Amino acid sequence: MITRMSSLFLRTLRDDPADAEVPSHKLLVRAGYVRRTAPGVYSWLPLGLRVLRNVEKVVREEMGAIGAQEISLPALLPREPYETTGRWTEYGDALFRLKDRKGQDYLLGPTHEELFTSLVKGEYSSYKDFPVTLFQIQTKYRDEERPRAGILRGREFIMKDSYSFTMDDEGLEEAYQAHRRAYQAIFDRLGVEYAICAATSGAMGGSASEEFLAISPNGEDTFVRATDGDYAANVEAVVTPHPDPRPVEGLPEAVVYRTPDAPTMDTLVAWARSEGITVDGRPVELTDTLKCLLVKVTEPGGEPELTGVLLPGDREADMKRLEASLEPATVELAEDKDFEANPFLAKGYVGPKGLADNGVRVLADPRVVTGTSWITGADRKNHHVVNMVAGRDFTPDAYIEAATVREGDAAPAGMGTLTLERGIEIGHIFQLGRKYTEAFDMQILDVNGKRSVPTMGSYGLGVSRLIAVLAEQMHDEKGLRWPAEVAPYDVHVVIANKDAAAGEAAGALVDRLSEAGLEVLYDDRPKVSPGVKFKDAELLGVPLVFIVGRGFADGTVELRDRMTGDADNIAYDDAVSTALGRTGK
Amino acid sequence: MITRMSSLFLRTLRDDPADAEVPSHKLLVRAGYVRRTAPGVYSWLPLGLRVLRNVEKVVREEMGAIGAQEISLPALLPREPYETTGRWTEYGDALFRLKDRKGQDYLLGPTHEELFTSLVKGEYSSYKDFPVTLFQIQTKYRDEERPRAGILRGREFIMKDSYSFTMDDEGLEEAYQAHRRAYQAIFDRLGVEYAICAATSGAMGGSASEEFLAISPNGEDTFVRATDGDYAANVEAVVTPHPDPRPVEGLPEAVVYRTPDAPTMDTLVAWARSEGITVDGRPVELTDTLKCLLVKVTEPGGEPELTGVLLPGDREADMKRLEASLEPATVELAEDKDFEANPFLAKGYVGPKGLADNGVRVLADPRVVTGTSWITGADRKNHHVVNMVAGRDFTPDAYIEAATVREGDAAPAGMGTLTLERGIEIGHIFQLGRKYTEAFDMQILDVNGKRSVPTMGSYGLGVSRLIAVLAEQMHDEKGLRWPAEVAPYDVHVVIANKDAAAGEAAGALVDRLSEAGLEVLYDDRPKVSPGVKFKDAELLGVPLVFIVGRGFADGTVELRDRMTGDADNIAYDDAVSTALGRTGK
Repeated sequence: MITRMSSLFLRTLRDDPADAEVPSHKLLVRAGYVRRTAPGVYSWLPLGLRVLRNVEKVVREEMGAIGAQEISLPALLPREPYETTGRWTEYGDALFRLKDRKGQDYLLGPTHEELFTSLVKGEYSSYKDFPVTLFQIQTKYRDEERPRAGILRGREFIMKDSYSFTMDDEGLEEAYQAHRRAYQAIFDRLGVEYAICAATSGAMGGSASEEFLAISPNGEDTFVRATDGDYAANVEAVVTPHPDPRPVEGLPEAVVYRTPDAPTMDTLVAWARSEGITVDGRPVELTDTLKCLLVKVTEPGGEPELTGVLLPGDREADMKRLEASLEPATVELAEDKDFEANPFLAKGYVGPKGLADNGVRVLADPRVVTGTSWITGADRKNHHVVNMVAGRDFTPDAYIEAATVREGDAAPAGMGTLTLERGIEIGHIFQLGRKYTEAFDMQILDVNGKRSVPTMGSYGLGVSRLIAVLAEQMHDEKGLRWPAEVAPYDVHVVIANKDAAAGEAAGALVDRLSEAGLEVLYDDRPKVSPGVKFKDAELLGVPLVFIVGRGFADGTVELRDRMTGDADNIAYDDAVSTALGRTGK
Repeated sequence: MITRMSSLFLRTLRDDPADAEVPSHKLLVRAGYVRRTAPGVYSWLPLGLRVLRNVEKVVREEMGAIGAQEISLPALLPREPYETTGRWTEYGDALFRLKDRKGQDYLLGPTHEELFTSLVKGEYSSYKDFPVTLFQIQTKYRDEERPRAGILRGREFIMKDSYSFTMDDEGLEEAYQAHRRAYQAIFDRLGVEYAICAATSGAMGGSASEEFLAISPNGEDTFVRATDGDYAANVEAVVTPHPDPRPVEGLPEAVVYRTPDAPTMDTLVAWARSEGITVDGRPVELTDTLKCLLVKVTEPGGEPELTGVLLPGDREADMKRLEASLEPATVELAEDKDFEANPFLAKGYVGPKGLADNGVRVLADPRVVTGTSWITGADRKNHHVVNMVAGRDFTPDAYIEAATVREGDAAPAGMGTLTLERGIEIGHIFQLGRKYTEAFDMQILDVNGKRSVPTMGSYGLGVSRLIAVLAEQMHDEKGLRWPAEVAPYDVHVVIANKDAAAGEAAGALVDRLSEAGLEVLYDDRPKVSPGVKFKDAELLGVPLVFIVGRGFADGTVELRDRMTGDADNIAYDDAVSTALGRTGK
């Protein structure tokens, strides 16, 4: 297959588009792979579409390898199934909603759990039909608040979503692990650098989930990795190690002090040091103070419940982590009116004892372990209490993840410390359990003839986003660099000499490369200078570039490897075999 | 490639779905190819998706063969470009409209002329870049008033749309003819029986267009074909032959009669016969009377203009034909208030002379040619005029197509008579000219360095609809029958014997067929009777079916040809070579 650049629908741009911030966005637009049609809505031009199809092919092959069967559901979906699970409203503004000419409600599918569940329910009724795993590669719609970075976070995008239905939890675990392996195979084939991160399930529901994050400084997601072990997690899912409890015997008594000039944690430490107060025989640190955050927690269908959250004074609260810990409840900060309604709350001086004495639930950071001593609010304006010992003077109702995660924090299971990194979500796999199958009352006759509700897994992979990720991870300052598996062409041939013989030789080379089964991009543009052609070749990023130029008089052509930057002069007659060897085709 | 039916996501149905009327709808649902998700919105299950991909492949190959380049535009489109051409409102209720979270207007693309025009305008500026033809195979949305017949007329469907941009009309003609040939190649490869019909351009605009109609009694479109020549046209586009003018010399004078009991054309004929009035020396027929229909014609942006339309008395007016003749003007029938406002109009007795005398434009059917004599209204209540001669007593301002077309009408250019047939639109090609390129002010520097507006063609082909058409044209009473080019599998192998040796032999045959490059559907379901398997094979419609059954003891297998119904016993060892020969692979 040969594409001639003289007639290819392509215009490369020398300048970055004004709205582009990250390299993948700049380069995919400059190289003519995509064009913006509306905010977060892109068109795929010939080269971009070829890469997209190649990525789809890899995904399709690896999904087929685990026995997943391809189908294709609509994007225009009726409201009812999403009403059944509550997601019609839960999705909020991220859902594109519309009405048809009869006034019926529709949505543009953001993910298809509801539809796959009701589809399988409609077809199958016996355990003999299970397990079944279905997938589609399909256009999805999410009305992102901040569509950004070109196709990295679009409002119309292409996703591979698959759904497994199994009769029991072991089946779900198998289907989940199969997807995990398939995702690894896909990302490995593409050469993506990624981490598999423990994740929270969020609005999707279910028990376990992991995210595949492509490592990138331009990623929107922060995740952690352990320095000494195979552990990665997104920030919401990080588990803070619980220190061992310590004995409370022999610890000094709690003492209340008047602290009129200590409204903040820092001023509290300064006050304690000026007073000569010590903890474990050393001067007080910020880590010896205890914050008591007041929030309201609302379980689904319930009333807001006032709750205290205890955090070491050197940590901020991370509301996303707190919300993830309390999912599916929602969390909001207490307001002035809550303090007014509860006069026992001394604003700025709230402590765990006053909360417990007044029946308010107290949740604590895992570091607030039995036997630790704290300086905290004394439940009285301008007063703090010193030597407040967990497990003696107060006992949290439960432990919770609510503190910010920091580089250098201890990793779980003794795997050293945590490093913070940024990534781009390219896959997310969920063990959903029975949330959706129960919502749709999917009853299947099991091996004993009894009705049983199947378990379900849901597995997403960002197909169009992967192309941005590849551009992001593999580009250099000159342009794109595609891995052979998904490159728009195998070989790029450039005529770099006006000599008619060179042109003929290039044409013959192109024909031979194509006949050998390679896909060839042929820069045959007659009035374009070699310099511009070279720059375009670098920008477009085809892995192998043959230059038919001055050297041709000596029977050689130049072969440039776009990924490594290496350039070799090789005999014209060896060009095809060399190309075949390099591409592995 | 082997698909085992024991694990295939497939449930065939014995009964027709309740909402299905046409065979393709019934069979595609019963055979588990598609499932309804919402009115006019369907899901593609594994077998259906395979046929869809095969059809897409044929379309892609033939579009590539004429140099069209594939790209992919979004389905979610901003309002502005459609506002530029007026189609945001012109489309009426057929357009799915929605708002994003910021309140911006969007639509789901029904066809992409606007987007392709602005895309090409954004990339190209010189004649050197032209001609260019772009296509996409993409999901389209139209909120049909009556979605029907499953995927035959859906609200979400897959279309190939392409757009050519050329510097002049000759270029447009070339691009148009190339598409015409590509469409013929596609439909011929699929074995579709179709007619290429002269068509009107309708709301799309432009000068010339043709429709490709698949011949089917369940088609929604009526078209005509000539008995003695290569002429077909949809009813709106039928051209009525103009008879030669005749001499007016020597024809009897026009005479006004009082006709109190002749309010209809039939009673008028009865009156004339009772009076002994003759035309050309023979008794009066209905075809000698002349209707004078009063309508109001509104040019875009103009005021309604009163207009008379003259039709032979044996013909009804076909308002769609009249509107197509007057496109882009709209047409409505005159109302009582129009008669009141124009007292010279004698309702029921309007004639061409009164109209002309009062400055009303008169349009006439081509049969109202110079030298023909008519009995028509005398512009006075209860009076008609006899021997009213066209070209002597009145002269139409223009000729127009407004009469119903009937089986047996004369075909143009002496090609015999017309037959009326029904068809399904599977393609429509348009010479748009400069309607869209002018709307977007697309200025390209021509060879002389002058700014020039390119010409454009637009070419649609119903990809998902084609699958319904193939089912409609090729099924038999037992089920679907696919042409080899797009069948979901090349071969279907059925184990029809519980003998373990037959099972092993079938498995080995399946492996060898797959190794030979054939795609094999393998009915290995252990607890399903041979009778059910045979019925399913007939329903599913794979072209070649191997039955490994009783005969296997003698070393033979049965090979059934689904299209012809032929069955042969062939040697097991010859099965692969026979299959390869039959499929042509």
